[in-house]
Amino acid sequence: MKKLSILGSTGSIGVNTLEIVARHPEKFQVVALAGGKNLPKMEEQIFRFRPDLASVMDEELARHLRQNLSSHPTRILSGMDGLMAAATHPEADMVVSALVGSIGLLPTLAAVKAGKNLALANKEPLVMAGEILVREVRDHGVTLLPVDSEHSAIFQALAGHRKEEIKRIILTASGGPFLKTPLEEMKGVTPEQALKHPQWRMGKKITIDSASLMNKGLEVIEARWLFGVPSSRIEVHIHPQSIVHSMIEYIDGSMIAQLALPDMRGPIGYALSYPQRLDLQLPSLNLFEAGPLSFSPVDEKRFPALGLAYQALEAGGTMPAVLNAANEVAVEAFLQGRLSFLKIPGLIRQTMEQHRPRQQNSLEDILRAHAWAQEEAQQIIHRGKL
Amino acid sequence: MKKLSILGSTGSIGVNTLEIVARHPEKFQVVALAGGKNLPKMEEQIFRFRPDLASVMDEELARHLRQNLSSHPTRILSGMDGLMAAATHPEADMVVSALVGSIGLLPTLAAVKAGKNLALANKEPLVMAGEILVREVRDHGVTLLPVDSEHSAIFQALAGHRKEEIKRIILTASGGPFLKTPLEEMKGVTPEQALKHPQWRMGKKITIDSASLMNKGLEVIEARWLFGVPSSRIEVHIHPQSIVHSMIEYIDGSMIAQLALPDMRGPIGYALSYPQRLDLQLPSLNLFEAGPLSFSPVDEKRFPALGLAYQALEAGGTMPAVLNAANEVAVEAFLQGRLSFLKIPGLIRQTMEQHRPRQQNSLEDILRAHAWAQEEAQQIIHRGKL
Repeated sequence: MKKLSILGSTGSIGVNTLEIVARHPEKFQVVALAGGKNLPKMEEQIFRFRPDLASVMDEELARHLRQNLSSHPTRILSGMDGLMAAATHPEADMVVSALVGSIGLLPTLAAVKAGKNLALANKEPLVMAGEILVREVRDHGVTLLPVDSEHSAIFQALAGHRKEEIKRIILTASGGPFLKTPLEEMKGVTPEQALKHPQWRMGKKITIDSASLMNKGLEVIEARWLFGVPSSRIEVHIHPQSIVHSMIEYIDGSMIAQLALPDMRGPIGYALSYPQRLDLQLPSLNLFEAGPLSFSPVDEKRFPALGLAYQALEAGGTMPAVLNAANEVAVEAFLQGRLSFLKIPGLIRQTMEQHRPRQQNSLEDILRAHAWAQEEAQQIIHRGKL
Repeated sequence: MKKLSILGSTGSIGVNTLEIVARHPEKFQVVALAGGKNLPKMEEQIFRFRPDLASVMDEELARHLRQNLSSHPTRILSGMDGLMAAATHPEADMVVSALVGSIGLLPTLAAVKAGKNLALANKEPLVMAGEILVREVRDHGVTLLPVDSEHSAIFQALAGHRKEEIKRIILTASGGPFLKTPLEEMKGVTPEQALKHPQWRMGKKITIDSASLMNKGLEVIEARWLFGVPSSRIEVHIHPQSIVHSMIEYIDGSMIAQLALPDMRGPIGYALSYPQRLDLQLPSLNLFEAGPLSFSPVDEKRFPALGLAYQALEAGGTMPAVLNAANEVAVEAFLQGRLSFLKIPGLIRQTMEQHRPRQQNSLEDILRAHAWAQEEAQQIIHRGKL
């Protein structure tokens, strides 16, 4: 019986994780849940999975929840304290880190330091503090299992093979909704248009990042830390069918690829039960129906965000945290109608140009760079010189 | 330093194997070579690789070779005695079994019984006597490494994963030169046309088998024994680009595939150096240039030979040996202009219909069924009732 703590339980990854848990009650038990603001969903999850601990975004929500669940034994906490308590719950064997954004950094690190194995869906801990996180994982002897479909694919394509023999990693990208939109039309793109992903249904932030290809840029940074491969050996291929989730070429010219229908239950299930697989009762991939699998290079003019991520990785130190923070500000501004879609990369570039990267010596350096970049990006929007 | 004995050294797989050996003299040494009738090539190989033992097809060729190499220390043998001596050479760590046809069965089994690890390119030992060969491999604690590109792909897609969790194996087939030829035109197909394989350059027998898809049928039988998976879980997909060499679907819906340019040095190198990989200096697969990867079901009307192989596997016992022997006779007759291409499957079917399969209890049962089927198939051709 594996005991789980799920950070981000009411989000898309959290809900899929709990669906798998519900199907395999003989394998998994939930000891802690941490969600955000969706109180009805959290209540439902508490009734169904009866965790020892549940946490919500703030104390007001927590009070509501305690009232509604007065006869229920689950302890209710809130805010960062609640997240940290869930991340380090003494009974948890594994923490599913599925928060969205930089808020997940501290709880994820805390889980590792508490000796928990980590199923990591939250990109930011690796993007902002990859070097530190990977060092802590090694020092604490825990297992870090990627939940992103691309990194799960790489992880599966590496199992049984040798990291030292990797020639290159190829991350695939669907290309999002604007793969073929005339550049001229992209100027007026609305949030509604950008939120229509052709293959995956995900949260808003990651869907916008997919449309700009910044999501793939963040994944390049993640892959660099997860697999210890320099950015010069990480490539991105556009693959509109989203069937090949990523691949590795080895030094003998052999490529190992992972393919599946786009369904996050696959990567989540693999992380939860590794090294075993769960019979997830998912439909088999039908390669006759999936249509020909095509691959093309990334058009860098159309998707400048990807190049910025490579630049941030090469600059090193705190620069990826700055890239990430500026992107968070840019996406939020775009969703609020304060920034046009095509100006997202420009905002990130200007923010990066103002930053002199420092070594990732401590979490404080990173958090300071993150806060600085958020402020700087907001200032640039206010000045309106984009 | 790994010491190799190469059976079939002057054939296509043998020559490629020696090319890899020549590039990695720090890793491999050749202690025995066994070829057929190509004396100039055998002489060249002996001068270059200086094996302790070399064997050719018959004693007359051996005498020639001894004269030409009078000052050379290599011992020269011939025939089945020579093959057996090469297969069991006391210094050999690994035997590369790359003979063509049923002639390879006894030397391959002898190698296993002598405790040699086996790099197996010769299909017939598994097709004719898969159950026995796999049992001997297990009993003698040797490693059996497949060299066929498809089985190497499956082997690589299984590394790091669990055999018990295989949902299905998908073998890919290019479809050969007649994938789209109108059935009407296939009646008059000449050996020259059938020998034009779109993707691979190989020996004549396997090229004709590729055109009829019997090659894929034999591979289904090999896969059944190599990976211990019942035929109901082995599928064949037509994949004209010959880039995905095969794949495995696991119980969670995840598929692992192996991709590479069609070049036998890849699978040979992997078998030679497993679990390490060699830096083969082969060009990387360029997925932008390879074009879209397409998959389609096998047209059973066009390629009835594949169905016969499944039937032989289901009938079990000696039936696969009968299928194989009848096919050998059919291909030879086709190459000699004595049988039309479209009558190859009919000849095999009629031969199978005359056979009552026995359990594969002993090698003698298999060799008897093989000899019977050869005779029977010849008789059917003579009677001309196809």
